[in-house]
Amino acid sequence: MLTIFGSVALDTIRTPTKVLRGVLGGAATFASISASFFVKPGLIAVIGQDFPKKYYNILNKFLDLSGLARANGKTFRYDGSYDETLSHRTTNKTELNVLGSFNPVVPDEYKKSEFVYLANNDPVQNTKVIKEFDGIKFSMCDTIDFWISTKRDDVIKMMGLVNSVVINDEEAKLLTKTQNLIKSAKKIMEWGAEYVIIKKGEHGSLLFYEDIVFPSPAFSLENIVDPTGAGDSFAGGMIGYMASKKSTKISTLREAVVYGNVMGSFAVEEYGVRGLSKLKKSQIQKRFNQYKKMVHF
Amino acid sequence: MLTIFGSVALDTIRTPTKVLRGVLGGAATFASISASFFVKPGLIAVIGQDFPKKYYNILNKFLDLSGLARANGKTFRYDGSYDETLSHRTTNKTELNVLGSFNPVVPDEYKKSEFVYLANNDPVQNTKVIKEFDGIKFSMCDTIDFWISTKRDDVIKMMGLVNSVVINDEEAKLLTKTQNLIKSAKKIMEWGAEYVIIKKGEHGSLLFYEDIVFPSPAFSLENIVDPTGAGDSFAGGMIGYMASKKSTKISTLREAVVYGNVMGSFAVEEYGVRGLSKLKKSQIQKRFNQYKKMVHF
Repeated sequence: MLTIFGSVALDTIRTPTKVLRGVLGGAATFASISASFFVKPGLIAVIGQDFPKKYYNILNKFLDLSGLARANGKTFRYDGSYDETLSHRTTNKTELNVLGSFNPVVPDEYKKSEFVYLANNDPVQNTKVIKEFDGIKFSMCDTIDFWISTKRDDVIKMMGLVNSVVINDEEAKLLTKTQNLIKSAKKIMEWGAEYVIIKKGEHGSLLFYEDIVFPSPAFSLENIVDPTGAGDSFAGGMIGYMASKKSTKISTLREAVVYGNVMGSFAVEEYGVRGLSKLKKSQIQKRFNQYKKMVHF
Repeated sequence: MLTIFGSVALDTIRTPTKVLRGVLGGAATFASISASFFVKPGLIAVIGQDFPKKYYNILNKFLDLSGLARANGKTFRYDGSYDETLSHRTTNKTELNVLGSFNPVVPDEYKKSEFVYLANNDPVQNTKVIKEFDGIKFSMCDTIDFWISTKRDDVIKMMGLVNSVVINDEEAKLLTKTQNLIKSAKKIMEWGAEYVIIKKGEHGSLLFYEDIVFPSPAFSLENIVDPTGAGDSFAGGMIGYMASKKSTKISTLREAVVYGNVMGSFAVEEYGVRGLSKLKKSQIQKRFNQYKKMVHF
């Protein structure tokens, strides 16, 4: 089984062409819907009283929700703006709301999960949650600049407790205080993670293990409308594929990274979760095959 | 035969760790030495009276120099500084010297060249030179921001006269006034080029033809000392490989791009041309094979 822990949010997303207010978002939302095309994941997260029924129905369609808590108060809200290149996002406002006081409970039936993904979240909370699992074969975490700036030691500690770290290039540099991504990945591996996956947006990703690098370009897209959730969809697709294969073999991991790229590419083609939620399994396999052909020489 | 036209320079290169003054450089120097590992290229370029014998000997070791003119005056000089990430270079000084009044002559024995590379140079001069050739199978040109800003129409005209354009990502965006590299490549193809290769530095390259994209990651390197000439080495290695195969088939072109990445990776491992000039052919094949293994999934 695959369990995903992290945030479910109501997002306000501002792109140069459109503003979406109060749409379904959050790292765990994107990651778990993405993973759901490979296995049915369990979600541990919290929503508020204001969480719309239609968004609950979307989550319920794709996920096991026995780990989803509804608390008194408002759902976590995020408001961000993209620049005209769609490569840079600035945060306008973050309202933690029910996320601030959330005390996550791992349902008993999740505790045997062999695959666990800690989507971006408070590293102290992540560290507490990961210890609740008994039979982990493969765990992975992400983090962002906010936690690196405010709780760097806890981030490092968390990374020592998982098998794998997935992280953006800029955040990897910030965290490890180096400009070279190979050096950066090595440092994260010294802290205890066996695998490091650095996400580079439109430039794809780098998977590191032992002294090996596996670079994979992004699936090339001409029309990107909303990059929100691309990295989370990448991570969810990746661990979802591994969970479906029940495997942590290197060959599976390399394929999983390509599935990650493929899922990220679907995410950015539509606003919000729509790029994922309207997807058919056959489209994923088709794009994976196109990807294989694309990079062949 | 392969002919390369462009600049030979005496460079001053400032990296955060070292300053090199008056070292052998220039787009055509890097491109032609890189190409020389595949075929012996003819070089059309100009040097001044001050050009050191030891640098002449390097060129003479790798290249056919019947197209190299020595003019009265000083050699073209370039002075540039890299920032601490080694990703951004600022120009401190450019002295055209003998390059300013150069009237390139294509030696008769070069005129039958089937492969011609116009390294970065005045687009008007490039356009004049390319017309001197009779039996071109594959021609390619590069350009930089200076020409895009000062002679954009001539750059576009030049691109309509070659089969292939190789260009940096930032310069492609500047030239085509778009942020999306697929859109950018399409625009350049509308101007007449059949193939477009966009170089993305540490992120590798994108080859475009018809409606197809071939992304190839850079060969991952932990220690980069001097990025000068990486793009020129890429282009030279690419067209050198094609010339050695006497082929413009797509499968050859895709392999050629990978050889381009490989040659670029050698170029940045040492200061100036040393990364290329000390290279053995067997190292290139070895790295090509490593690359193949690196990207496999």
